[in-house]
Amino acid sequence: MKKLYGVIGLGRFGGSICKELSKEGGEVLALDLDEDKVNEYKEIASDAVIADSTDELALKELGFRNLDHVIVAIGDNIHASILTTLLLREIGVKRITVKAQNDYHEKILQKIGADEIVHPERDMGKRIAHSIISSNVLDYLELSDEYSVVEIKAGEKMQGKTLLELDIRAKYGCNVVAIKRGKEINVSPMADEQIMYEDILIIIGADKDISRFEKALVIED
Amino acid sequence: MKKLYGVIGLGRFGGSICKELSKEGGEVLALDLDEDKVNEYKEIASDAVIADSTDELALKELGFRNLDHVIVAIGDNIHASILTTLLLREIGVKRITVKAQNDYHEKILQKIGADEIVHPERDMGKRIAHSIISSNVLDYLELSDEYSVVEIKAGEKMQGKTLLELDIRAKYGCNVVAIKRGKEINVSPMADEQIMYEDILIIIGADKDISRFEKALVIED
Ligand SMILES: Nc1ncnc2c1ncn2[C@@H]1O[C@H](COP(=O)(O)OP(=O)(O)OP(=O)(O)O)[C@@H](O)[C@H]1O
Ligand SMILES: Nc1ncnc2c1ncn2[C@@H]1O[C@H](COP(=O)(O)OP(=O)(O)OP(=O)(O)O)[C@@H](O)[C@H]1O
Ligand SMILES: [Ca+2]
Ligand SMILES: [Ca+2]
Ligand SMILES: [Ca+2]
Ligand SMILES: [Ca+2]
Repeated sequence: MKKLYGVIGLGRFGGSICKELSKEGGEVLALDLDEDKVNEYKEIASDAVIADSTDELALKELGFRNLDHVIVAIGDNIHASILTTLLLREIGVKRITVKAQNDYHEKILQKIGADEIVHPERDMGKRIAHSIISSNVLDYLELSDEYSVVEIKAGEKMQGKTLLELDIRAKYGCNVVAIKRGKEINVSPMADEQIMYEDILIIIGADKDISRFEKALVIED
Repeated sequence: MKKLYGVIGLGRFGGSICKELSKEGGEVLALDLDEDKVNEYKEIASDAVIADSTDELALKELGFRNLDHVIVAIGDNIHASILTTLLLREIGVKRITVKAQNDYHEKILQKIGADEIVHPERDMGKRIAHSIISSNVLDYLELSDEYSVVEIKAGEKMQGKTLLELDIRAKYGCNVVAIKRGKEINVSPMADEQIMYEDILIIIGADKDISRFEKALVIED
């Protein structure tokens, strides 16, 4: 059976979720107080309605009880975000994801039973700060506090060398799991693969090992 | 020489960048119109000042011309964001990153020479929509339009089997590059490694191959 989603609050964050879920074929009920926002999503979502999500009757009449997963993306009005989450829980929505404004907001959301709490601006701020500091790291996936997968520009010192010659695993404890060359991605690089100018390496390992690797082979002095 | 950063606008996004750059040892000059915000960052940033970033004289007096990289994280006031970017460019800041509100805003920022334009809410909305749709995928790194690294919950069908038995590379064309078990991460999994309940696999490959793998071994029917 097709899953039914609800998105409450069509700011930049909620709007993006609504677009993406719809693009992937999801059935989405979009809701906002603001008429202009609702009109913007009329063609994108399965249905878009003007309503106040703190109005229990409205939520019931709109059939929110039948939704599998609702995302509460109300921003500045923390009170409305909390009350909405509470009502959705009471009505019996199966899964609720809520955007939090700060740690205090998060704590309350946890207490009232939000299934998932997200901090989009904070998380993206972290990502961008990281890319600002180490400008060779283009993107990354945090696997834990200590391990990551990073996309990193090959340094000049690596050019023309093979993976065997560089011996990254033995010397720095991390693994090259793929090489990106223009639009091509090689996800099974061989030991005799030669690193070329502008190659991008995908590396997995402990952060401290990746950082040793970076200092030795990537950062220009 | 230590790099000098500036962060203009201490909302959730700008605030997070300011915190992270400072945590990593960066020298950060933080600026906001709002006194409360500035006080919040007094102890975190190297310096935090109350000022209007559309005031050219103020930017000059605060020494913005000496900064290597300034992040403009002004939100709703698009006009202030544009004017600030223009002034920073004129003053001679080396690198400018600006948060855009929408495509129209982005176009103007490109024209006036912003080096990097970011859409934190939109990008994070996409990420979260993806994790909502495929609930087994916990997180991912997009390597290109067609390739990704994904963090995926091992399915019940995989339990007790070794990597050799599952033969994921031959059958689905993607590679298991790491296994996460609780807080432990094994970045060099061997062929005889047995998959356990609640293991999380880190997989690299073409999106279509990852999705074949997911359908065959992860998604419960
Ligand atoms: N009670 C409510 N019922 C329905 N929609 C609401 C309610 N309160 C706020 N909203 C809507 O939520 C949306 C997001 O709110 P706001 O703009 O304050 O958040 P934001 O965090 O700045 O957004 P973003 O960063 O995602 O752009 C707005 O479109 C607003 O109209
Ligand atoms: N001209 C200006 N000079 C300095 N600071 C400004 C100026 N205009 C706005 N700001 C500050 O920028 C910050 C971010 O603005 P706003 O809250 O509108 O953005 P936002 O996109 O909703 O933020 P976020 O989503 O990151 O929390 C605010 O703290 C605001 O005071
Ligand atoms: Ca925001
Ligand atoms: Ca993660
Ligand atoms: Ca806002
Ligand atoms: Ca990427």
